[in-house]
Amino acid sequence: MLKPSPVTPDEVKRHNLARVMRYLHENGELSRSDLVLLTGLNRSTIGALVSDLAKVGLVEEVSGVGGSRGRPSLVVRTSSSHNFVLAFDLGVDRIVAAAVGLGGEVLATIHRSREDGPYPVKKAIATILESTDELFASLPTGAVWLGVGIAIPGVVETELGFIRKAPNLGWIDVPFGQLMTDSLCAHIGVCPTVVLGNDANLGAVAEFVRGAATATSSVVYLSGDVGVGGGVVLGGKVLAGGSGFAGELGHMVVNPTGEPCNCGSRGCWETEVGRDAIFSAVGFLPGQGSFSDLVAESLTELTDIKRALSGVGEWVGVGLVNLMNSIDPNYIVLGGHLAEIYPYISEVVDARIDQSRPNTQTRAHISLPSLLLNSPLAGAAEAAFGPLLSDPLHEMDRAFVLI
Amino acid sequence: MLKPSPVTPDEVKRHNLARVMRYLHENGELSRSDLVLLTGLNRSTIGALVSDLAKVGLVEEVSGVGGSRGRPSLVVRTSSSHNFVLAFDLGVDRIVAAAVGLGGEVLATIHRSREDGPYPVKKAIATILESTDELFASLPTGAVWLGVGIAIPGVVETELGFIRKAPNLGWIDVPFGQLMTDSLCAHIGVCPTVVLGNDANLGAVAEFVRGAATATSSVVYLSGDVGVGGGVVLGGKVLAGGSGFAGELGHMVVNPTGEPCNCGSRGCWETEVGRDAIFSAVGFLPGQGSFSDLVAESLTELTDIKRALSGVGEWVGVGLVNLMNSIDPNYIVLGGHLAEIYPYISEVVDARIDQSRPNTQTRAHISLPSLLLNSPLAGAAEAAFGPLLSDPLHEMDRAFVLI
Repeated sequence: MLKPSPVTPDEVKRHNLARVMRYLHENGELSRSDLVLLTGLNRSTIGALVSDLAKVGLVEEVSGVGGSRGRPSLVVRTSSSHNFVLAFDLGVDRIVAAAVGLGGEVLATIHRSREDGPYPVKKAIATILESTDELFASLPTGAVWLGVGIAIPGVVETELGFIRKAPNLGWIDVPFGQLMTDSLCAHIGVCPTVVLGNDANLGAVAEFVRGAATATSSVVYLSGDVGVGGGVVLGGKVLAGGSGFAGELGHMVVNPTGEPCNCGSRGCWETEVGRDAIFSAVGFLPGQGSFSDLVAESLTELTDIKRALSGVGEWVGVGLVNLMNSIDPNYIVLGGHLAEIYPYISEVVDARIDQSRPNTQTRAHISLPSLLLNSPLAGAAEAAFGPLLSDPLHEMDRAFVLI
Repeated sequence: MLKPSPVTPDEVKRHNLARVMRYLHENGELSRSDLVLLTGLNRSTIGALVSDLAKVGLVEEVSGVGGSRGRPSLVVRTSSSHNFVLAFDLGVDRIVAAAVGLGGEVLATIHRSREDGPYPVKKAIATILESTDELFASLPTGAVWLGVGIAIPGVVETELGFIRKAPNLGWIDVPFGQLMTDSLCAHIGVCPTVVLGNDANLGAVAEFVRGAATATSSVVYLSGDVGVGGGVVLGGKVLAGGSGFAGELGHMVVNPTGEPCNCGSRGCWETEVGRDAIFSAVGFLPGQGSFSDLVAESLTELTDIKRALSGVGEWVGVGLVNLMNSIDPNYIVLGGHLAEIYPYISEVVDARIDQSRPNTQTRAHISLPSLLLNSPLAGAAEAAFGPLLSDPLHEMDRAFVLI
C-alpha cells in the first residue's frame, strides 16, 4: 500500500514553482497568461511564483512582441546564460562536453576524439575535469552552475549513479556518479550533483522535450554508436523496464541464423546494422573516421553506396517493423551512424516495412535527430536540470557561482 | 497547450468517491483505516464517502476478523452480488459470457463453441443477446446491471466502440459498440454502455488488476488463439501505441526466411508459434478441439510431445527475448494455446532465452494466467466496470435493476 504524504502549503508552493519553472525551461519564454492557462492557477498566484523565481535569478520579465492591440506585452523567460549545467556524452570514439543554459541554450561545446576500445575510468574522469575547466573559462563570472549530466553507452541505475555495464567502455559495476562528484570536489572545491543516464534514453528524452518529437506522446531514439542502443519515452517518461533492460533494442534477435554478437547471442540487430556491419558492407575500415567523412573521401558514387548498404537497410527495416508491432511509437529517431546512413537506405527501409506490414497504412514517423547538440548530450543537460526543475529555490540555494 | 478544468468541491468529491470505489473493487474489502492510509484522506471524509457509496448500495460495512485487541473490526466491502456487469470474449472458436459482480466475483458463465472462420456480425449479436437472457435468468431480482464489456480479437478503437479489423472474425470497420447498444435496447428495452477492447489488452489489464501480475509495474499478456496477440500494461495503463498497433506482437518478424503469414508478411512470430504451427508440429488437425483435449485423447508420450514441440519452443523463446530486450516487462503471461503448451516447452524456452541473453541474469517472470475466468473475459468485466469506477454515483443513477 502506498501512503501519500500529507500536502502542506509549502509543498503546494514548491510543486507550483516547479511546474512554472519547467514550462519556462521547455518553452523558453511564456506570457503570464500562458502560464495561467497551462497551470490552471490564478493570475495572482502566477505573479507571486514568477516573482519568487525572478528574485533568485532564474527568470526575468522582458517586453515581448505581440500582446493585444499591438501593445508590447511582458513575457517571462529563463535567465539562460546566467544559469547553466555541464553535460557530457561519453561515446565510444569521442567525448563531447557542453555548457547548456536554462531553457536549452548551448553556451559552449568541446569535442575530443579518442581511440576505440576500453577506456580507463580514471582517464574518463581526467578528461571530464579538463573539459570542465575549459568550459568554465568560457563562461562569464557570476554564472550559476546547477549540476552535471553524463550520457553513458551502457546500463545505468540512474537513482544510484551506478553503471552496471558499459561494454564498449569496458566498464562493469562502476559507481561513476559518486566518483565524479568526489573528483569534482577535490579538483575545484565544490561538489555538484552528478546525474548519469543511458545515452539512448537521454537521446529519447531530448528529442521528446525539444527535438523532433515534441508534438507527440511516444518516441524511440536509436543511438548508433559501435552497437545500437534504444531509448523509449512514453508519455514523457523513460521506459526503464522491469529490470533496467528496456531499450536493449540492439539485442533483439532479428536473424536467428546470423553472426555471433559480442553479447554472446547470435543474429542480434546490432550485428546486422552496427557500425562494423555498415563499414564492412561499404569496404571501410572501422575506426578510421565517421561514415560521412569516409564517404566524402572515398569519392564513391551515390548509387554504389546505396547498393552496398541495401542489405543493412533491409535489416534496419526488419528491426523497425518489430518496434512498430510491439511499441508502436509515434516517432522513431535514428541517431548516430544510423542517421548518417539513413539517406542512403531510406527507400530500402520503406520497402521492407511495406513488405512486412502490407495491410497497415499507419506507421511510426521515421526521423533524423533535430537538435543542435547531439541528442544524448542534450538529454544529459536535461537530466542535469532535473533537480532544479523539481525544486527550483532549494537547488538555487545550493548552486555554485563562478568567480 | 492543455488547460486543466477548474476543480470544484463537487469534482473533488466525485474524484474521491471514485478512488475509494476503485480500491474496494480491486481489493474486495478494506477497513476504514486502510482507506485512510491508501487515499491520504482523513477519517471523517472517508466515513462520508463510504456512507454515500453504501446509500446507493455499492458497498456495505460488515464485521471483519482481526482488529486491535481481538475485537472484531468493521470492514467495508463491495456489494458484489447485487451489482454486476456482463462480459463477453469473442474467441475464434468459442464465445464465453459471464456475469461478474463488483469486486470481481464471478456470478455465472456460459461457454459456446463455434466453427472456426468468419463470423457474421449479426450472428455474434444474436449469440450475445441469447447469452444475456440466460445470464439474467440466473441472477436474482433486484440485481443492478452496470454495463457490458466485450473482448475482441482485433484492432479496436475503444473510445469509439469501433472495430478496425478482426481478421479471424472476418470483420473490418464495424461500429460494434453502437450496434450492440442498439440491439440490447431493442431486445430488452434498456440501453447499457458497451465497452469494447482488444482481447490481449484486456487480458493484460486483468492479470495486472487481479491476476498473476498484481505486485508489479509492467506486464505483457500473450493471447494465443489462432494467432498470437499481445497486450502491454505499463504502470497500470494499456500501451495503445501511436497508431493503435502496439502489442501486435504476433507480427514481429522473428524468422525473415520463414513461411508466409496471413498478414502478407513472412516469418512472423505467429507463423512460428500460432495454433496451426503447434498442431502441425504434433500432428493434430486444427479445429478438432483444444490442444489439451487432443493430447489427452492421443495418448502420446510426454517426451514425444516435448520433442515434437521443441522447435515451436525455440521460436517462443526468440520472441520472448525480443520482448525482454525491448519492453523488459516484469511479467509475461502466456495465455490461450501458449499456456496449454508451456508445460511441454518451458525447458526449451528457458534454454533459448539463456542462449540469447548469456550475460543477463535478470529476466521477466514468465507465468501462466492465474484467473478463474479466462483473462480477456476478466478484462472485459474490468472494462465494463470502468464508467462506474470513474463516477460511482452518476453511474448508479443510470443503472438498470433486474425485475
